Amino acid sequence: MDENILGLVAGGITSVAMLPQLIKVLKEKDVEDLSLLMICTLIVGLSLWVWYGFTKNELPIILSNAFAVLVNICLLISFLIYRKKSK
Amino acid sequence: MDENILGLVAGGITSVAMLPQLIKVLKEKDVEDLSLLMICTLIVGLSLWVWYGFTKNELPIILSNAFAVLVNICLLISFLIYRKKSK
Repeated sequence: MDENILGLVAGGITSVAMLPQLIKVLKEKDVEDLSLLMICTLIVGLSLWVWYGFTKNELPIILSNAFAVLVNICLLISFLIYRKKSK
Repeated sequence: MDENILGLVAGGITSVAMLPQLIKVLKEKDVEDLSLLMICTLIVGLSLWVWYGFTKNELPIILSNAFAVLVNICLLISFLIYRKKSK
């Protein structure tokens, strides 16, 4: 398989991976079992992957991680909103 | 910054990102708010990243994603165990 296609497929899958979690949180408005530390660590780590992608000039890495950062920021915002409500 | 060091740091952070979630699940034995679809999608996507790493011969990508696959498999096993118990 062409490695760029492979990268785009891999990137696409890991990008959308957090979406079901985000949708679940938005539906159930409950984040009790989620780890805030996981979300924050992911945002930092994924941002560094975007940077790595730029230095290596690899579009699959840049696009997929940038999208994943966005999803995790939404998850973080939801976490902060729903954690407050459940107190 | 040297791009390989950057890749290793980025990989290290995203690798350990799921660990707090795994620890939280193991401690609280509660997975109700976790998305099974997220865990399965991550395992598939991260495995493809390992493959991508091999085709590009990039060690940071191989190592970090292989570790993240392991953590997510542990999370999947925990999910299946604790979901049964709460029924």
